[in-house]
Amino acid sequence: MSSSDSPLPSEKQADRILEAINDDYGGVVVEMTNEPMDAHIFVSLLRASLSHWRQLGKKGVWIKMPIELVNLVEPAVKEGFYCHHAESRYLMLVHWLPSTPNTLPANASHRVGVSAFVMNEKNEVLVVQEKDGKLQGTGLWKFPTGVVDEGEDICDAAVREIKEETGIDSEFVEILAFRQSHKSFFEKSDLFFVCMLQPLSFDIRPQEAEIEAAQWMPFEEYTAQPFVQEHEFQRYIADVCLAKKDEGYSGFSPVPMVSDFSLPKSYLYLNQQDLDI
Amino acid sequence: MSSSDSPLPSEKQADRILEAINDDYGGVVVEMTNEPMDAHIFVSLLRASLSHWRQLGKKGVWIKMPIELVNLVEPAVKEGFYCHHAESRYLMLVHWLPSTPNTLPANASHRVGVSAFVMNEKNEVLVVQEKDGKLQGTGLWKFPTGVVDEGEDICDAAVREIKEETGIDSEFVEILAFRQSHKSFFEKSDLFFVCMLQPLSFDIRPQEAEIEAAQWMPFEEYTAQPFVQEHEFQRYIADVCLAKKDEGYSGFSPVPMVSDFSLPKSYLYLNQQDLDI
Repeated sequence: MSSSDSPLPSEKQADRILEAINDDYGGVVVEMTNEPMDAHIFVSLLRASLSHWRQLGKKGVWIKMPIELVNLVEPAVKEGFYCHHAESRYLMLVHWLPSTPNTLPANASHRVGVSAFVMNEKNEVLVVQEKDGKLQGTGLWKFPTGVVDEGEDICDAAVREIKEETGIDSEFVEILAFRQSHKSFFEKSDLFFVCMLQPLSFDIRPQEAEIEAAQWMPFEEYTAQPFVQEHEFQRYIADVCLAKKDEGYSGFSPVPMVSDFSLPKSYLYLNQQDLDI
Repeated sequence: MSSSDSPLPSEKQADRILEAINDDYGGVVVEMTNEPMDAHIFVSLLRASLSHWRQLGKKGVWIKMPIELVNLVEPAVKEGFYCHHAESRYLMLVHWLPSTPNTLPANASHRVGVSAFVMNEKNEVLVVQEKDGKLQGTGLWKFPTGVVDEGEDICDAAVREIKEETGIDSEFVEILAFRQSHKSFFEKSDLFFVCMLQPLSFDIRPQEAEIEAAQWMPFEEYTAQPFVQEHEFQRYIADVCLAKKDEGYSGFSPVPMVSDFSLPKSYLYLNQQDLDI
């Protein structure tokens, strides 16, 4: 079973185990390095490790496998592991050891997007035409939109997207509304936050790669577009923006939270106007 | 190169290509069946397919690889594919063919949770003690919480979690506030929606597997707990619940949207009280 280029015969490895750290839920996490490893040696180490962790009563066993070690994925699956999630550089494999029901946390289920309502003092809104996508070539002027990155705050993502797409600096005001939709991308769901931002600069410089054109457009002209009038979601958003502009509609604004449970910085979004803070 | 148990010699396969369907973004999607396939035959088919798709100017090539075909992951990676995302039953591999920058959509980045504020006519709130987790054994009474599944509406998830954990039937009222936090689970971010629900039944039956105890507790007793007083997030939520109870605080309530862009049913959440619908 041992391969000729193995650094050590697999027999000698049988009493060694994989390096692992304990997690907070009675499990262990193995972070494999990028060092190439022979599949037979890996299986031998893995079996000894699983036996050891079972004796210790460990629950979930996680193996973070860099893409360079993709040769070890098939052997791990044969030992009872499955894919929990994956990113471009690694696969996260997991194996639930107890006979009790699996209580491992679910994988990320949602993508998050933002759309930005930005109005100047002349009641003009910031709108763009995109180079790609479903609306390409339709002549539609729409609010700038973008994807919230992993680890990025919604309020920061909205400011960043406006800057990238139009060159406009802005300050986040609040979330006016949001939509949850499903199967937007394979089986994943989608949360789409419509945000209001205050412009801090006014000179538009459209992003070359993604934006065909950008302009300040009278709000009435924006809402009069057939696309806005014919789509229930777009009509609602236009109504909300109008209510915000004229009638003191109150959305959710961000309050920074000091760290709870040793988590990094987080924001609580709520109706501050009604809370009287 | 051909293996003895191949249905056909790989040479004969070279002029065949993998079955694929076009996506909306100039790419193709290959859904591999669970049928075992020899790795050499796969590589031969894949190379012929890639050459064909390049000639057609295709952009992203997606291969949905069932876990049963994990032997084909390493060969695909060697041909230039990487892991876009994975679930327990499959890996999604992708390869961007053009020389232009990769515009493939990002993987799901957020997990979504709910917490439920449920109050009866005696100003008592529905609270639970959990069997597992960080708060186990602390004696803390907390709102029922849970994870929103892929494809599940936030409003449905809140009703389901209350029913599962406490046996109480309820009707969704609105989202009072939400928190976005980061690195809650490996590199993924988290959105946690605090929801208000109206109870429709009052006889508590705690879930055996996860819930140690459940009860209706006077709201003042809930907020007086040190855990609530000492954590900024918990204090804010208690204040919001109080403002909702006494002062007409307005959160975001769901409006069902008829399908836009042939997406499945979705909900728009907004401040309906301020919108005067």
